[in-house]
Amino acid sequence: MNTFSKETYIGRRKRLKEKIGSGILLFLGNEESSSNFKDNWYPFRQDSSFLYFFGLDMPGLAAIIDVDQDLEIIFGDNLTTLEVIWQGAHPPISELAEAVGIQITQAKNELPKFLAKHPIQKIHFLPPYRPENSLKLAEWLSIPNPEIPSRASVDFIKAVVALRSIKSEEEIREIHKAVNISVSMHKRTMKEAKPGMKEYQLLGLVNGEALALGGHLSFPPIITINGQILHNHNYSNTLTEGKMLLGDFGAESAMRYAGDITRTFPVGVEFSSSQKEIYQIVFHAYQAAVAALKPGIRFKDVHLLACKRLAEGLKELGLMKGNLDDAVEKGAHALFFQCGLGHMMGLDVHDMEDLGEEYVGYTDAFKKSKEFGLRSLRLGKELESGFVITIEPGIYFIPQLIDQWQAENLHSEYINYEKLAQYRNFGGIRVEDGYWITDSGSQILGDPLEIELADVERIRGK
Amino acid sequence: MNTFSKETYIGRRKRLKEKIGSGILLFLGNEESSSNFKDNWYPFRQDSSFLYFFGLDMPGLAAIIDVDQDLEIIFGDNLTTLEVIWQGAHPPISELAEAVGIQITQAKNELPKFLAKHPIQKIHFLPPYRPENSLKLAEWLSIPNPEIPSRASVDFIKAVVALRSIKSEEEIREIHKAVNISVSMHKRTMKEAKPGMKEYQLLGLVNGEALALGGHLSFPPIITINGQILHNHNYSNTLTEGKMLLGDFGAESAMRYAGDITRTFPVGVEFSSSQKEIYQIVFHAYQAAVAALKPGIRFKDVHLLACKRLAEGLKELGLMKGNLDDAVEKGAHALFFQCGLGHMMGLDVHDMEDLGEEYVGYTDAFKKSKEFGLRSLRLGKELESGFVITIEPGIYFIPQLIDQWQAENLHSEYINYEKLAQYRNFGGIRVEDGYWITDSGSQILGDPLEIELADVERIRGK
Repeated sequence: MNTFSKETYIGRRKRLKEKIGSGILLFLGNEESSSNFKDNWYPFRQDSSFLYFFGLDMPGLAAIIDVDQDLEIIFGDNLTTLEVIWQGAHPPISELAEAVGIQITQAKNELPKFLAKHPIQKIHFLPPYRPENSLKLAEWLSIPNPEIPSRASVDFIKAVVALRSIKSEEEIREIHKAVNISVSMHKRTMKEAKPGMKEYQLLGLVNGEALALGGHLSFPPIITINGQILHNHNYSNTLTEGKMLLGDFGAESAMRYAGDITRTFPVGVEFSSSQKEIYQIVFHAYQAAVAALKPGIRFKDVHLLACKRLAEGLKELGLMKGNLDDAVEKGAHALFFQCGLGHMMGLDVHDMEDLGEEYVGYTDAFKKSKEFGLRSLRLGKELESGFVITIEPGIYFIPQLIDQWQAENLHSEYINYEKLAQYRNFGGIRVEDGYWITDSGSQILGDPLEIELADVERIRGK
Repeated sequence: MNTFSKETYIGRRKRLKEKIGSGILLFLGNEESSSNFKDNWYPFRQDSSFLYFFGLDMPGLAAIIDVDQDLEIIFGDNLTTLEVIWQGAHPPISELAEAVGIQITQAKNELPKFLAKHPIQKIHFLPPYRPENSLKLAEWLSIPNPEIPSRASVDFIKAVVALRSIKSEEEIREIHKAVNISVSMHKRTMKEAKPGMKEYQLLGLVNGEALALGGHLSFPPIITINGQILHNHNYSNTLTEGKMLLGDFGAESAMRYAGDITRTFPVGVEFSSSQKEIYQIVFHAYQAAVAALKPGIRFKDVHLLACKRLAEGLKELGLMKGNLDDAVEKGAHALFFQCGLGHMMGLDVHDMEDLGEEYVGYTDAFKKSKEFGLRSLRLGKELESGFVITIEPGIYFIPQLIDQWQAENLHSEYINYEKLAQYRNFGGIRVEDGYWITDSGSQILGDPLEIELADVERIRGK
């Protein structure tokens, strides 16, 4: 079993108990997940908060921390004799628990009995994102299933977010490993993609590389010649000369920390001149954003800075016009950059997304905007030393969105719709890397991967 | 969308209606499945019965067939304008439905209303294997969730099994494609595995090859130097000279038909002499089983024939002794061959396993044995022309099982425990291919893949 030292987990739970003060914290690990019949499983993925506090990456576990009694128990069943025959011998749960500093283990069916002994107001749980875990909570706590999300404990969520947001040095080392697997995946793609290939051939390459390096995919890869389709999990197109390939993918390390990188490169050897122009605008926005990273700055302001740089570049090209401060404030740039500049990254690629953006990316006093563009910004609040985030600006020409805005004559004082018609089939460009916020600024995660235009063309064979 | 012709689906539904005669058949397609947060999805896998009758491989669909009214409806929602902006344009549900011969489509939320209009006794559903589909049935039909499995319709299950069990020629062509992707995966593994590699490097190779050829994995691969661990999804060992690598994996074709192949080969170039001896015993049992395949023979008898061949070989080696007919009848061979000889294969690698072994592999009159060994035989009933099955004999030396039997002195009249001690760390050997039962016998599925001992050593570099 791949874990940090016992002291790491003991320390994390100690800080959690201090933050919460009182109550019973219930952690549900994940189960195997069925694809087309019960025993045909997707690759197992443990719950990230369970991993953070208990480290054990296997199905069928749960745990409680009784803060008042200072009691910590892992619930799980050892293999039966018959299971040992089919699955081979595994260490008993007690031995695994001991390795992460837990002295008490009990059989799975003891958990509902334990919970039944305590008043429900004392029991804190995190919002479940898998239906089977929701069902367990509903049954054990006698809460109707649809009410489960609203009964999750905000105190528990906030305490977990506070701890998991600040990455320790050993976590940073793990994230480096994940990013470096991701770098290998991208290098191979950038070297091996050729006109005539299918996108799914690169999907195979990327997936195979992640596993062959001892990792897993951290999210479903985007590998597409249609970079303007932001949520694109189709891989059926043929790579054709003149198009660009946008690859947004990354790996988890063996310990389940995530990497997430995007590169956009020409299917041929060189970008076309208009591709070069857009690429440089995106890259300069990326550089400006990275330069601004430091503790204390609001990430929303970094996002708006990048938007401003994108708008400036687009104005030089004649696609935007007018006063750009006003344009960005009114959201006119969001025709080209519809999404957010980045997100937290850690044990999840969108770190702690299951716990709720209002807690992870914003605060009680500083709420997310509901405007188009800003409402897709997962992280808005002040950066702190120890955060790990992504920076991923882009420019996307989405025909359906252009048509919609143009029909409404939306922001026509800032957008040159006539000129824009030439870019209708341009596609989209994004670049992305992960950054660690340090006391003095930030540091890129992982080994270098070509990102400057000339370097990208060089790795493509120029 | 990758489908057969409209007539294929119309024909399948027509035959289903004829078999059932009356009632409302409810089909639930699958949803996206979350890994570590709601929107981080495993690769989508549609329900196989939904695919068989409706062909549409996308999440969020359901369908009904009202047999009495001869009414067929697909329920699903088109993308919203906002979703089109993020996900790109997709054909409307009505167009997709038309391509599989369905004229009526309705929004998702019409389905519970439709069901509410009919008496619950008329509504037939298949047993769900995903918790979210179980929850839907519980809510829509006002059945407590734990009762859902027992309320599934046996008539509906039997009708679906009868149809899906007999593969058409166009299905056989698809299975050939899946098997051929599987053959490529195995060829690469047999060529590229080298001492010093980690099992997970081969996992990467296998996974990458399946995707790069436009397929998917049909089940979690077994790639192990511990072939005696039958349910083995660990990939952390190093390939060492002297060991054998057992690879049991396969691909789904783009249309989701499955392939499933096993090969066992030396990590070095040649098998050791004792590995050769055991390999030949397994291979001869495989040949005997294949030769026996034809319509009308009980697969349980083919299984027992293979067991007999294994026992004969083991007796020659001095590991078994006594009267082998008695030994096999009493299950003594199951110390070495604990599992079944094969299973149905089609849209699922264990075809229709979600519908229940008692219907897929056995009949009302011919039930599965509860004995060790035979109770793991998924398919026992008479073969019919059109069945697709696997043949996968093996010999496994499982230390825990040997210890257990020896402690009980079990079947000591047939097993030479003293000699067996030399094989304690031998490991396990299995070979497996897919076969199509034809009118006159059987036909192997897919292109040739090395299986004879000399050919296996040749592909390893001898």
